[in-house]
Amino acid sequence: MARLTLALDVMGGDFGPSVTVPASLQALASNPELNLLLVGDPDAISPYLNRTDPSVMTRLRVIPAESVIAGDARPSQAIRASRGSSMRIALELVKQGEAQGCISAGNTGALMGLAKVVLKPLEGIERPALMTLLPHQQRNRTVVLDLGANVACDSTMLVQFAVMGAVMAEEVVGIPDPRVALLNIGEEETKGPDNIREAAAVLKRTPTINYIGYLEGNDLLTGKTDVLVCDGFVGNVTLKTMEGVIRLFLSLLNSSGEGKKKAWWVMLLGKWLQKRVAKRFGHLNPDQYNGACLLGLRGTVIKSHGAANQRAFAVAIEQAVQAVQRQVPERIAARLEAVLPKSD
Amino acid sequence: MARLTLALDVMGGDFGPSVTVPASLQALASNPELNLLLVGDPDAISPYLNRTDPSVMTRLRVIPAESVIAGDARPSQAIRASRGSSMRIALELVKQGEAQGCISAGNTGALMGLAKVVLKPLEGIERPALMTLLPHQQRNRTVVLDLGANVACDSTMLVQFAVMGAVMAEEVVGIPDPRVALLNIGEEETKGPDNIREAAAVLKRTPTINYIGYLEGNDLLTGKTDVLVCDGFVGNVTLKTMEGVIRLFLSLLNSSGEGKKKAWWVMLLGKWLQKRVAKRFGHLNPDQYNGACLLGLRGTVIKSHGAANQRAFAVAIEQAVQAVQRQVPERIAARLEAVLPKSD
Repeated sequence: MARLTLALDVMGGDFGPSVTVPASLQALASNPELNLLLVGDPDAISPYLNRTDPSVMTRLRVIPAESVIAGDARPSQAIRASRGSSMRIALELVKQGEAQGCISAGNTGALMGLAKVVLKPLEGIERPALMTLLPHQQRNRTVVLDLGANVACDSTMLVQFAVMGAVMAEEVVGIPDPRVALLNIGEEETKGPDNIREAAAVLKRTPTINYIGYLEGNDLLTGKTDVLVCDGFVGNVTLKTMEGVIRLFLSLLNSSGEGKKKAWWVMLLGKWLQKRVAKRFGHLNPDQYNGACLLGLRGTVIKSHGAANQRAFAVAIEQAVQAVQRQVPERIAARLEAVLPKSD
Repeated sequence: MARLTLALDVMGGDFGPSVTVPASLQALASNPELNLLLVGDPDAISPYLNRTDPSVMTRLRVIPAESVIAGDARPSQAIRASRGSSMRIALELVKQGEAQGCISAGNTGALMGLAKVVLKPLEGIERPALMTLLPHQQRNRTVVLDLGANVACDSTMLVQFAVMGAVMAEEVVGIPDPRVALLNIGEEETKGPDNIREAAAVLKRTPTINYIGYLEGNDLLTGKTDVLVCDGFVGNVTLKTMEGVIRLFLSLLNSSGEGKKKAWWVMLLGKWLQKRVAKRFGHLNPDQYNGACLLGLRGTVIKSHGAANQRAFAVAIEQAVQAVQRQVPERIAARLEAVLPKSD
């Protein structure tokens, strides 16, 4: 792997530097070609850099930032007051070519808006979309978008998402001629709101897209499609619902049962078997696929879950590494040129 | 329990009489005060009535219907051509007072539209909503609506759903002063689309509603609220996503693992543990809470899942029994009068 530099907004997310800095050190340790620019308050960062291996420290630089965008700030206000914030500086480092991609666990709306202002959308894209690779039952992954960047989407946006998702599936997941579906409340053509039915009509007559029709929520993890497209409101609620259910199951598996006293050997056997079962569900654990990619920009931007723990934030850094290496923005730009109608 | 008669559209759903008739017999057997009117094609029904206990047969009557509304029919067309269909006749039996409630596993849009035409909405309700009682982590139930009756909802409809949901939680689940939340993509006030933020503003200043704010998808099963309100598109996708994930887990639990050969005692222990775990998840099994109630009508209408099996359809019948016994429509009407703004 060639040398690669990423900029991190270490102040964002529910836990700030206490999670993002240890995760950065973890990523640096496991990836010897990686360099990281940690953007944030140096005083908040430095306590977590004590006793860091010197060979790792040489590949890390702290970039001071004066302010942090609050998680509950209204995006429009946050963007106006963004100068000097850790999120904006991280994006500007990408714009200036100092970094090839950036990661933030901060305010999603602000990240989306600032990324548009600083990095600009690709030619032919109205609004970027948040995308993730969801592991599914067939032991491969589904590209799902939008996950919350756009609360409401018209049919044109949904079609653009479908194109970007297909490029991701082909170039990053490695699926030739990937299947593309729209998330809807029924599989029949007559179902759902106008914007989805209009997008379906366009996708059906787009020869470069392998459009397979509507899928319902229960097919999210079945692997029936390689790309699943929806608006950001539905995508966000759906993904969080799925995560909530999975976490509930994993916690039930790990909990100690009804509270009745049991013989020691039953407890031991139970624990051993529970571990085995939990292992079989492990690939569905939300911590393992943290990191949504903001697609449609002239640069790589990864949004980490705000509540991400160290392991999950490290996964988001790894996602950024992959997106940069696979040249996702460049490949999307090339495909868009071939697929989208020319403006005239 | 007093004598109670329900009308069943036995032709609806993916499996028709092969599921609905055996489920009816099961319900009759377990509920000696229940009478059922089976509406459908007598030739399709009668094979499933062979060898039925005579004491059960006396509480069952077949009402002939000439046609069936197709599951994929466009609701507007289906309603125009509905005369003589099993779904319409079942609703008319309620209208005429022959039955106190009805159940169908057929086309949701058509059922919603026909119920509005035949039974009429309650005073003050624009559009009925599909509601279900979802079991949650705290071993109680959350009232969730709308689950698909209304693809798009304005803020007024969401407020009406909140009122109806609160009545359900109080009267049927038995929760005094139930907590009411709106499903959204963040907990901060600034999050989400206009209709949700407007509904939040109204609910906040409605003293008879215990409004607690926004909840996200991951809180669907945590029991943080007693009533969860959303539009029908999001509700449908969310519920199906949840069901899909739960079914995936239950199937993984029951599957035999990676296919490696195992010692007999490992297999035995594995089976034993799987049973224990499955038991702890049992209350979340979708088959156990099938049956969504169409709230806001002058009568009880239960929509069963189209893919319901015999057990699940019997649960839907039981839901109808409960709704009639608890006088859900009457109680909602009374509460609406007190809560909703008078039209002047």
